[in-house]
This record gives sequence, C-alpha cells and structure tokens, in this order.
Amino acid sequence: LAPNNSWAISCTGCVDLDELNFDKTIVRFPYSLVKFDIAFPYGEKHEAFGAFSKAAHKVTDELLIATVGIKDYGELENKALGERFKVDDKNFPGIYLFLGNVKEYVQFPAHLDVTVDNLKSFISSNTQLYIGRDGCLKQFNDALKDYANKESAQQLALIAELKKEQSKLQKPEEQKSAKAYLLFMRKINEQGYSFHEEETKRLLRLKAGKVTEAKKVELQQKLNILEAFRVNKLTKATESAPTTAPPAKEL
Amino acid sequence: LAPNNSWAISCTGCVDLDELNFDKTIVRFPYSLVKFDIAFPYGEKHEAFGAFSKAAHKVTDELLIATVGIKDYGELENKALGERFKVDDKNFPGIYLFLGNVKEYVQFPAHLDVTVDNLKSFISSNTQLYIGRDGCLKQFNDALKDYANKESAQQLALIAELKKEQSKLQKPEEQKSAKAYLLFMRKINEQGYSFHEEETKRLLRLKAGKVTEAKKVELQQKLNILEAFRVNKLTKATESAPTTAPPAKEL
Repeated sequence: LAPNNSWAISCTGCVDLDELNFDKTIVRFPYSLVKFDIAFPYGEKHEAFGAFSKAAHKVTDELLIATVGIKDYGELENKALGERFKVDDKNFPGIYLFLGNVKEYVQFPAHLDVTVDNLKSFISSNTQLYIGRDGCLKQFNDALKDYANKESAQQLALIAELKKEQSKLQKPEEQKSAKAYLLFMRKINEQGYSFHEEETKRLLRLKAGKVTEAKKVELQQKLNILEAFRVNKLTKATESAPTTAPPAKEL
Repeated sequence: LAPNNSWAISCTGCVDLDELNFDKTIVRFPYSLVKFDIAFPYGEKHEAFGAFSKAAHKVTDELLIATVGIKDYGELENKALGERFKVDDKNFPGIYLFLGNVKEYVQFPAHLDVTVDNLKSFISSNTQLYIGRDGCLKQFNDALKDYANKESAQQLALIAELKKEQSKLQKPEEQKSAKAYLLFMRKINEQGYSFHEEETKRLLRLKAGKVTEAKKVELQQKLNILEAFRVNKLTKATESAPTTAPPAKEL
C-alpha cells in the first residue's frame, strides 16, 4: 500500500501543484522553489524540504514553496509535468528554483545533499532573498562581522546605527530579534568576548532544562543570533589582561 | 479510519492551503475561490467544486481555486484559519471568493446548492470573469442574443463581425469554438431555426453512440454552443411559410 496523506510526512507551507495549475501559480510569485517527487514523499530529503518551508515562511512572502507529486501508476498524474523538467523516478526528487516564470529556472545541484542549510544557501545564491537561521536578521548579521575585535568606539557607533535599523522593523518577531542583537552588542562592548562563551553556555543550559517548546524555540533563536558574534580569532585586547600581548584565543 | 488522499476524490487544479501560506497565496491572484472543509472531503459538494475547478482552468488564469482542510483532531491543523472566516464543522463547507486580498471577500450563499452551475454564476456575479459552459465564448454568446429572430441582413452582418473576433483569438480551443459558432450562424441563416432542433438531435445521437471520451467532450461543447442559439419564441417568418403570419413556436 502506498503511504496515504494521513500518514505521510506533511509539508506545512508547501503548496501541492498539478498540471492544471502549475504554470498559473508559478508566474504569480517572484520566486518558486519546487520539489518534483513521488506522489507521497517521505524520508530525509522530504523532511528537510518541509523544515526549509517553515523557515522560509517565517522570513519572506516572495518565495512560493511547492511540491509536484508524480504518479507512475493509475492515471499517471503529473507525469507530463515531470517530463517538461526532465524529472522521473531515476532522479527523484528534482528541485528547481523558478525566477518568476516557467522558462527561467535553476536546478538544485544533484551532487548536494538536500538539507535545510543547503536549500537556504541555494536560495541566497540565486535570489535576493536571505533565509538565515531562525531569529537572525541579514542586515544585522552583515553589520556585525568581526564585531568583537573592533575598538569600543566603533562598537558603540554600530550600536547607534543598528538602533536606527531596529526602529524601521515592522514585524514583532524582527523587533524581538533586534533587541537581542543590541543586548549582545552592549554586553560584548562592556564585558568583552568572554560574554559570548558564558552566554552560549547559559542559553544551552536553559534549553536543556524543563522549558516549554515555545521557550526552546526562543532560546534557539538567541543562540542563532549569538552565533553571528562568533569570531574565529580574537585579536582585540581584553580590558582585564595584565600583559600587553592580547590573548590569542582560537575558537 | 479517515479517508486518505489516495482514496479521496481528487480536486485537480485545486491548491490546498494552510495557515503558513494562505494569506501569501491569496494576495497573488486577482480572485481566489476557497472551500474551507474537512481535511479529506468527499461527496457531491466536493465533486462539484472539483468539476468547477476543471471548468475554470480551461478559461482563465486569474482565479485561484483552493481548499483548506480543517482538522478537529490531532494537531488541529488550520482550525485557527477556519475561525478567521467563521467556518467550523457546523457549516462545512464554507466557500469564499476573495477579491485579491484576505479582507475583501464574498461568501457563497448558504442557501444555494453547491453545484457547478451555481459556482459559475457566483463567479460571474462577483467578478469580471465568465466561466460558461464548456466550449462557449462569452463575447460570442452575448452577440448572439435572439440571433434566430434577426433579419438575414443583420445575421450576415453579425457573421462578418464575429469572423473578426475569431481572428483575434489566441487559444486553439477558442478558435475551434469560434468555428462552430460561425458554422451554426451560417446554417441558421441559410436554413432557418429548424436547423437548431435537427442539429441538436444529430449531436445527441452521435454522443450516445460508440465514440471516444474525447469525441464526447467535443460533441458536448458543440451542444453547449448550440444552446446559445436557442430562442424562447421564434418570431421570424420561415422562408417556406405559406401564410403571412409567422408560426409561433414555443420552446
């Protein structure tokens, strides 16, 4: 028995398309990520696609995330649609990014694993969209490169600049994220980079404890934001260093 | 056991929406007809909706046809979405026409049967779209009101006019329909209204015989087109009438 939809792994946020509505729906979105697959998909790749869908829906309205189920039994539903894009049971799933119409598209590289991170990279590389880790904001991440190694005056200037960015944000989730970014910026400015490791441990400890699912999500978002502050090599002197040589801390 | 998708009556052309993608998809289309229902719908109303979907997809790109499956078990998927539009198991299915955004919508009247024809009328009444009988073209239907009762010169003028309309048509199915309209216009002009009854009978006979499904569809399209020529009362004198009084023919 083929798996049925009540048992199949759902793909929340994914739109299932067929031969009648494929073209008409694709053209309505600036970008569409489509997974051509068997009719009732399951397994790691499908789950990754579903996880990607949830992540994408948190941050953008511009990307349609869709599936096409191709049957090679019964009425051969969508077989012709699969053939248009040269997808069949030898190369399921075929993942394609459409750029606003059915003629311009990029195929997800066959040699890449279908993981959430690879799908996010695929989107970032081929569109102006950025689907980062949950809770992260692109413009904040970009502004914070090497933050921990900057001079205090530079850090304070960045704090002022990103406060202005924060005031432009519309969505409550984005404002909440910005608040966390700014808090970490201030703490690192005041306490130095040691705050990063302490806070990471603190958040991980809380997350492993008895907390609600919603709280776990919130803690993971903070951990993701904290990741943006990680530097590979700390080159800035800490305030409490007794010697003149800055401690080189490989991370 | 709840019916599963492999047994459920499919709704070809229908897009199944959920809480993550509902708003984002509705706003992308000029019009959206959405059926809020149980998670695995079946029965007359669902079948009518599916038949309507196929009919609509033949003639327009502007109407999204969608379903939302509301579960009152398990993870209560889409329950909140149903509540936004005051749909629950007491009044399934709830059918709504959205006018390009989630705030402007018209509800399909609860007292009307959910039939293909009623759905078509609902669309015609509330949008600029026209989803007529299979094979029909709105501008031809409109031009042919009371055609059989017009003077020959008027009929010939209409034939010339609609030949020009035919040359503007892009889709092969539409050109095929126009060809049938013009043929019937000529025959009625040459032979009078008796052609209508004879041709109707001829097409019905063929359709009831051993013909392929595709041929049956074609014959039904011709019958639908012929319907556009039906007049309730024939007021025009036939050429072979021996008396001066026109035969009144109630139909």
